[in-house]
Amino acid sequence: MRIAEIRLTPVAIPDKPLLNCKGVHQPYALRTIIEVVCDDGTLGLGESYGSSKALAGLRKAAPALVGLDPFHLHELHARVLAALPEGGGINAKSAVADHRLTDVVTSAFEVPLMDIQGKLLGRPLYDLLGGKVRDRVPFAAYLFYKFAGHIGEAPDEWGEVMTPQAMVEEARRFVGLYGFGSLKLKGGVLEPALEIETMRRLREAFPSHPLRIDPNGGWTVETAIHIARSLEGVLEYLEDPVIGMDAMAEVAAATSLPLATNMIVLQFDQIAEAVRKGAVRIVLSDHHYWGGLRASTHLAKVCETLGLGVSMHSNSHLGITLAAMTHVAAATPNLSYACDTHYPWTGVDIIEGGPLAFDRGTLAPPPGPGLGVGLDRARLAEFAALYDTCGVSERDDTAYMKQFDPGYERRVPRW
Amino acid sequence: MRIAEIRLTPVAIPDKPLLNCKGVHQPYALRTIIEVVCDDGTLGLGESYGSSKALAGLRKAAPALVGLDPFHLHELHARVLAALPEGGGINAKSAVADHRLTDVVTSAFEVPLMDIQGKLLGRPLYDLLGGKVRDRVPFAAYLFYKFAGHIGEAPDEWGEVMTPQAMVEEARRFVGLYGFGSLKLKGGVLEPALEIETMRRLREAFPSHPLRIDPNGGWTVETAIHIARSLEGVLEYLEDPVIGMDAMAEVAAATSLPLATNMIVLQFDQIAEAVRKGAVRIVLSDHHYWGGLRASTHLAKVCETLGLGVSMHSNSHLGITLAAMTHVAAATPNLSYACDTHYPWTGVDIIEGGPLAFDRGTLAPPPGPGLGVGLDRARLAEFAALYDTCGVSERDDTAYMKQFDPGYERRVPRW
Repeated sequence: MRIAEIRLTPVAIPDKPLLNCKGVHQPYALRTIIEVVCDDGTLGLGESYGSSKALAGLRKAAPALVGLDPFHLHELHARVLAALPEGGGINAKSAVADHRLTDVVTSAFEVPLMDIQGKLLGRPLYDLLGGKVRDRVPFAAYLFYKFAGHIGEAPDEWGEVMTPQAMVEEARRFVGLYGFGSLKLKGGVLEPALEIETMRRLREAFPSHPLRIDPNGGWTVETAIHIARSLEGVLEYLEDPVIGMDAMAEVAAATSLPLATNMIVLQFDQIAEAVRKGAVRIVLSDHHYWGGLRASTHLAKVCETLGLGVSMHSNSHLGITLAAMTHVAAATPNLSYACDTHYPWTGVDIIEGGPLAFDRGTLAPPPGPGLGVGLDRARLAEFAALYDTCGVSERDDTAYMKQFDPGYERRVPRW
Repeated sequence: MRIAEIRLTPVAIPDKPLLNCKGVHQPYALRTIIEVVCDDGTLGLGESYGSSKALAGLRKAAPALVGLDPFHLHELHARVLAALPEGGGINAKSAVADHRLTDVVTSAFEVPLMDIQGKLLGRPLYDLLGGKVRDRVPFAAYLFYKFAGHIGEAPDEWGEVMTPQAMVEEARRFVGLYGFGSLKLKGGVLEPALEIETMRRLREAFPSHPLRIDPNGGWTVETAIHIARSLEGVLEYLEDPVIGMDAMAEVAAATSLPLATNMIVLQFDQIAEAVRKGAVRIVLSDHHYWGGLRASTHLAKVCETLGLGVSMHSNSHLGITLAAMTHVAAATPNLSYACDTHYPWTGVDIIEGGPLAFDRGTLAPPPGPGLGVGLDRARLAEFAALYDTCGVSERDDTAYMKQFDPGYERRVPRW
């Protein structure tokens, strides 16, 4: 059994004007939908980044995978390395924390191959990862400060959220709609005193919800230590308060709050230094760049071995990604935190049956076989057409922010 | 699909009077052959230790596994933990390096479940571990000083090997018969000067064969440092020269020779300390106590992450174990050393077709499905009967040595 054909379809999906320390989300988020077809007709689905360098890497590697046995995942990685000898990252601009292109491309194809394996077996994908250890996977509400609406558009249904009180209302709505039992705030947006106040108000409003804040390295060490100490006893963890291994270690040493990261530990070869320096206590897993679903189970075991916690990172995504996240989370014993997800902000999907539905903040892995999701080809065509016409081919939150505020400048750290 | 029945058959297999720092191998080595039968008739095979505590643990856990889905490996571990709440080790006597009973029992059943998975897929087991990265797995000759024959018996076909020159002859015979390209000596038997001489003579006789020596912690730190320095440039690695994490670290700091271990790192939770102390550079994998074949792939990734090398440990074993070792080794990219194996010393087997045959010191994983080996039930019955009559139910190299030398005493370290 061999791979006969690979189809890559970039799509644009509507996004909301969500704020972070580098700007604001553009009206469209980009993804690539991956279809791997075997010579017996078995179809495997995947989803990855849609930005230009990732898409170019996927397109360049795909022909090298025709003829590959879908069980030969080591060879998948070897063929990707050979097809992309220039290596490099996936971000168009120099990024503080970039992902290795070959990791991203390997990851992108590993999921459809695992989907194929599950389909051949007639079993849910999690059974290929040792079976599930939980029936339902908890996710966290992903709270964002946001503008009322996109430029030239009326306010969206969430309206403006730029104050601590408005954030409490956003959280109430999220919890009411989806039942999330954990809350994560994208921080680094407002001045520190207001973000501290936001977390304290969330604590008052949701006394038993675990809380996190993630400023994407938007704070100086001094600011981060001040905020961390102010929120000890309030947060379950603090994610990427500052940029860089040594800066993270300095903050970690100054607070009892556990630090989490998806910015200083993105690859296996960064873990040892982080542990040696005491820079983090929780690593955010993400099958889109750690090497896929099997590699994510390796990462979890590495973390268990080193006494690190495991949580799960998210970018704006669709249901294929959500299904994959849910399968691997269900099969990862020490994934002990609610997973991040941007999914409710997207609100649309290209999978059959429309968006997957959270129940009490949790999702059961689709029962399979494989990922357990199929393509709605009409919707796929619709969002592929949108990709062609929407005028966005690269994520650039800073450029879009300048359309709101011409004086805005990208600064990391900002506060 | 569920497990319907589990059959455990302890067997005794003829062994040779092979020496180590604690004594000499008894006339029989003990193993347990494991058959897991699913409700659809699919049979999975496994092989584990045959000593009394391991066998008792296997027997106690087995009933708790009836009804288990053979893909639910996390649940396998959970059920074993629940069935064996008393925990403990597998050695009858207090041992310097004992294996956790629950790890051993989980490992013992994981292999037949993986065998079943492969059979359901109609694929070799290595395809469930990401596919093979090498067609043939290299093994090392396992050289032992030995007595001419067992008590009351005529000399065996290998005769007495108690001098450096006799060891060179043993090695020549091993290489001639099996083509091994690496040589490992079980040390800690003769006085250090003679073992140094043995290694130097082996180096002269086999100038391009990687060489190792493993005294099972039989040396003092002082002796170990002397030997290590004497053999720098001669050995590829030195295995467990001393007992204990701190002693290993002391030796490691005093020599450029890489230290390897299967005595101070037996479980995932021992790895961090070993790395922090710089105690070892190579970990010996062994699917019989690391948790099985999938766990062995986790171990390899942990080692890669931490900059440790991976080799593979062996006890006296039969062909089911050898097949499992070969499948996981074929699917482990960073298993960069020839694997240990006692297999040629055994010379008999309970698998169909008789013992697996090395070619130029290597073995291709049986092509499957699953492990790719079947039971020769007549041979199984023969060695099960031998277990019942041989008078050995526990490994005790020291007690047997006392039959050769009444004045012998167990001493660790010995030299």
